[in-house]
Amino acid sequence: MTDPRFYEALGPVAAETLAAGLVVSGDKATQIREVASFGAGDAHALSYVHGKWSAPAGGLHGCIVASAADAETLLAVGAAAVIQAPSPRAAFARLSAQLFRQREWLEEGLAPRVEPGAVVAPSAVLSPGCAIGAGTRIGPFAAIGPGVTIGRGCSVGPHVSIQCALIGDQVSIGPGAVIGERGFGVAVDQTGFCDVPHFGRVILQDRVYVGANSTVDRGTLDDTVVGEDTKIDNLCQIAHNVRLGRGVMIAAFGGISGSSAVGDRVLMGGRVGLGDHVTVGDGASIAAGAGITSDVPAGETWGGYPGQKLRQWMRETAWLRRAVRKGHGGS
Amino acid sequence: MTDPRFYEALGPVAAETLAAGLVVSGDKATQIREVASFGAGDAHALSYVHGKWSAPAGGLHGCIVASAADAETLLAVGAAAVIQAPSPRAAFARLSAQLFRQREWLEEGLAPRVEPGAVVAPSAVLSPGCAIGAGTRIGPFAAIGPGVTIGRGCSVGPHVSIQCALIGDQVSIGPGAVIGERGFGVAVDQTGFCDVPHFGRVILQDRVYVGANSTVDRGTLDDTVVGEDTKIDNLCQIAHNVRLGRGVMIAAFGGISGSSAVGDRVLMGGRVGLGDHVTVGDGASIAAGAGITSDVPAGETWGGYPGQKLRQWMRETAWLRRAVRKGHGGS
Amino acid sequence: MTDPRFYEALGPVAAETLAAGLVVSGDKATQIREVASFGAGDAHALSYVHGKWSAPAGGLHGCIVASAADAETLLAVGAAAVIQAPSPRAAFARLSAQLFRQREWLEEGLAPRVEPGAVVAPSAVLSPGCAIGAGTRIGPFAAIGPGVTIGRGCSVGPHVSIQCALIGDQVSIGPGAVIGERGFGVAVDQTGFCDVPHFGRVILQDRVYVGANSTVDRGTLDDTVVGEDTKIDNLCQIAHNVRLGRGVMIAAFGGISGSSAVGDRVLMGGRVGLGDHVTVGDGASIAAGAGITSDVPAGETWGGYPGQKLRQWMRETAWLRRAVRKGHGGS
Repeated sequence: MTDPRFYEALGPVAAETLAAGLVVSGDKATQIREVASFGAGDAHALSYVHGKWSAPAGGLHGCIVASAADAETLLAVGAAAVIQAPSPRAAFARLSAQLFRQREWLEEGLAPRVEPGAVVAPSAVLSPGCAIGAGTRIGPFAAIGPGVTIGRGCSVGPHVSIQCALIGDQVSIGPGAVIGERGFGVAVDQTGFCDVPHFGRVILQDRVYVGANSTVDRGTLDDTVVGEDTKIDNLCQIAHNVRLGRGVMIAAFGGISGSSAVGDRVLMGGRVGLGDHVTVGDGASIAAGAGITSDVPAGETWGGYPGQKLRQWMRETAWLRRAVRKGHGGS
Repeated sequence: MTDPRFYEALGPVAAETLAAGLVVSGDKATQIREVASFGAGDAHALSYVHGKWSAPAGGLHGCIVASAADAETLLAVGAAAVIQAPSPRAAFARLSAQLFRQREWLEEGLAPRVEPGAVVAPSAVLSPGCAIGAGTRIGPFAAIGPGVTIGRGCSVGPHVSIQCALIGDQVSIGPGAVIGERGFGVAVDQTGFCDVPHFGRVILQDRVYVGANSTVDRGTLDDTVVGEDTKIDNLCQIAHNVRLGRGVMIAAFGGISGSSAVGDRVLMGGRVGLGDHVTVGDGASIAAGAGITSDVPAGETWGGYPGQKLRQWMRETAWLRRAVRKGHGGS
Repeated sequence: MTDPRFYEALGPVAAETLAAGLVVSGDKATQIREVASFGAGDAHALSYVHGKWSAPAGGLHGCIVASAADAETLLAVGAAAVIQAPSPRAAFARLSAQLFRQREWLEEGLAPRVEPGAVVAPSAVLSPGCAIGAGTRIGPFAAIGPGVTIGRGCSVGPHVSIQCALIGDQVSIGPGAVIGERGFGVAVDQTGFCDVPHFGRVILQDRVYVGANSTVDRGTLDDTVVGEDTKIDNLCQIAHNVRLGRGVMIAAFGGISGSSAVGDRVLMGGRVGLGDHVTVGDGASIAAGAGITSDVPAGETWGGYPGQKLRQWMRETAWLRRAVRKGHGGS
C-alpha cells in the first residue's frame, strides 16, 4: 500500500474518468485509489500487465492496464475493469501519476519529531512529519524529507538526502549518499518518453552502513529493502525494488540493478554488477569486477563477465594465456 | 564564443603582450580577445595546434599557439600571428587563463530572476545573474551558479550544483548531481603540470533527466550538449565536449569520455564506457559493461571490451568456454 | 601517532581494564594510550596481529591483541602484554574504539582560523579548530570538519565535506567530493559484525586535484596520502591507507583499494581498478578498464583483467577473435 507519509492520495477516481480517452472494458465505474504490481492489488488498485502473464493464484482484482488483446481474458480471471492501451507500461505510468502526489521537500505540515538526545546540525533540513530517534546525529546540510523516520543511534553524514524512507537503528549513512530518490525508468509510447513514477520506499534495517556518495533508489510499486548489518561501500548504486539480505558486503562501485534479490551474507568485491531480476543465494561470493547476468546458487563463488563459477573463469583466463603464448612464442 | 554570463573577458590584449617571453611570428600587435578550437576562431581568437593538422577550409585566422616548426606554414594559410611554444597545449592553457576569468560563486552582481510560480528552497543559493523559470522547484542546498539559466517545470534536487550551464524546460536533476564543473585535463611542459582551463558550457535540452550524484562536465572551448528526452541514471560521468543526441538512455555508472558523440535513441546498459573521440550512430545499443574504443555504426548492437558487435563477442565467450571445457573435462 | 586535532584521547587505560572479560598475558598493568599497526607502536600502543607474522626488526612493544596460540611467542619477542581473542581484528576494533573518539562536526571548540584573503561562502560550515589559508575559496555548503587544515590558494567546491585531513597549497576539490570519511572495513566475530574504526588522516599534498563526487577515505591506523600534482577525475574512490605518488593521473571511475601504493607519474585510464595491497611502480601506465590484482613494475604498460602487460592482453584478445572467426566463418 502506498505509504501516506510519502505520497498524498489524489483519488479515488472511477476507471472511466481516469482512463480519459482510452477504452475501458468491464465495470467502468470501478473506484481506483491504489497502485500495485500485477496480481498484488485489491479491488481498488490499478495495475498493468505486458508480455506473457498468468493469472495469480488468488485471482485478479481491481483495474488492469493492458493491451486490447488481453482484455477479455483478464476480465475472465477476475479483473473488475481493463483499461486498454497499446503500450500498457507507458499508459500505467501516465495514469498512476494522477492517483498520488509525492510530498515535496518544501511544503508545510506536521512539525518534525526529534527525540531527546538526538543531535541535529543547525544547517540540516528536517521536513514536516519526519522523526529522528534518540542518540542519532544528523550532519551539516543533511536533507531529511517529509515523513522520513530515522531510528536511534544512527549517524547521517553531511550532504545526505533521504526521501520516502524508513531507517532502522544504528544505521550509518556516509556524506553525500542519496537515499530514496526515484529510480531510473522510462516508458515509451506513441506520444514519446514518460518517466516511470515511483510509489515505493527504501527500508534500511538496523546497523546498515551506506558509504559516501552511494545511491539507494526507492521502489516503483514495492520497496527497496536493505537487510540488517549489510554494509555498502562508497559510490555504489542500489536500484529500485532491490532486496539485499542480512550481512551482505558490497565493495566500492557495486551496482545492483532493478528488482534483483541478494541473500544473506553475500560478499561482493569491488565493481561487481548485477543485472536486473537476478537472484544471488545466501552465502555466495562474487569476485571483483564480475558482471552477473544469471542466478547465483547459494554458497557458490562466481566471477567474470558474463558471470560463472570463479574457478571456471580463472581456468578460461589461464587457458587463453597459455594458448596465445604457445602460438606466439611468449610475450 | 565564450559566454559572458559565465566568463568575464580580461582582454583584449596584443599577442606580443600575452606571449610574454615566448617568440611571436607574424603580426605581434594582433589583438586577442577570444579563445577557440583550431580553425574555429575569428581574427581575434587564440587557438592552438599540436601534432598533424590541415588548414581549415575557411582559412585560418587570429593567433595560434604552435611549435616553432609550424609557425611559417600557419602564417602562410592565414594565421595573423603564431606564438611559438615547445608544448603548445600547455602554453595555450597558461595563456588562455589570462583572457577570461570564470565568474565565482561568491561575487556580487545582478539579482537572480525567479519567475512567479517557481519554488526555491530557502536554503538554496541563487547566484547573481541566474534565472529560474515558472513551475521549477529548486531543492534544499542546491547551488545555482552565476548566470545559469533554468527553464520552466524543472526539478532540481537537494545538493545539486550547477555552473556555466543552460537548462531547458522540464529537466529533472537528481540529488547531488554536479553540472558544469570543469573537466579533467592536464597539460604538461617543462615547468610542470597545468590544469586545462574550461571556457565552455553545459547545455541540457528539454526533458533531460540526470540521476543522483552524476556529473556532467562543461566543455573546454566548445559546449557539452545533452539532447532532448535523454535520460542519464545515477553515478554517471559525462565528460567535456561530449554530445549526446535525443532520447539516449544511459544506465548507472555510464561513462562518456571527452569529445565523444552519441546519436539519437542510443541505449546503453549499466557501466558502459566510451573512450574519447568515439562516435556512436543513431539507434545503436551497447550492452552493459562494454568498453567502446572505436566508432559504432547506427543501429548496431555492440558489447565486450574492446567493444565489437555483441553477437561476435558472445560467440567468442561461448567458444572459449567450450574450448576450455573440452580441454579440461568440464568444471 | 593519532592526531589530537581529529581524535580525542580517552586513555590511558591499563591493558587489563581495557580487555574487560578477555584473558591478558604479560604485564596486565601496561598503560595503553595509542593505537598502531603491528610492529609500529611504542610501549603504550595497542596493535593486533592475525595470520602469519614475523617479529619486526626493531622488536615488539606495547600490547598486542592476538589469538591465544600466539601469546607466548609475542611476549618472547618483546610485547609487554597480549590480549587474547579468537578474532583479533574484531577484538581490536572493539577495544580501540574505547581509546579515542573522533571529534564531531557539531561540537564546540577553538574558533576556526581564516587567513586574510580567503573567501568563504556564508553558507559553508567551518568547524572548531580548522584553518583556511590565504587566497583559498570555500564554496557554498562546504563542510570543513574539526581540526582540518587547508593551505593557501586552494579551491573547495560546493557540497564538499572534509574531515580528518591536512590539505596543502593550491589544491582543488570538485563539488560533492568527500575527503576523510572512514573507509570500508568490517570485522566479524562470534558477537556479530563490527565496523573497523579509523584513526588515520588524509593528506592531500600541493596542487592535488580531486574531481566532483570522488571520495578519498582516511586511513585506519596510518594515513591516506595523495602526492603533489596528482589529479583525480570525477567519481573516483581512493580507499583507506592508499599512497599515491606525485603527478599521478586517475581518470573517471578509478578505484584504488585499501593499502595499495602507486608510484610517481603513473597514468590510469578510465575505470581502472586496483586490488588491495597492490604496488604500481613509477611511470607505469594502466589502460582503461583494467583490473590490477598483482604488482605492476615501474615503467610498464598494463591492461586487462586480471591485469597483465597490455601487449599480451591485446594479443590474447586478437588471437581469440581470429580463432573464433576461423571456426565460424566470420561474423
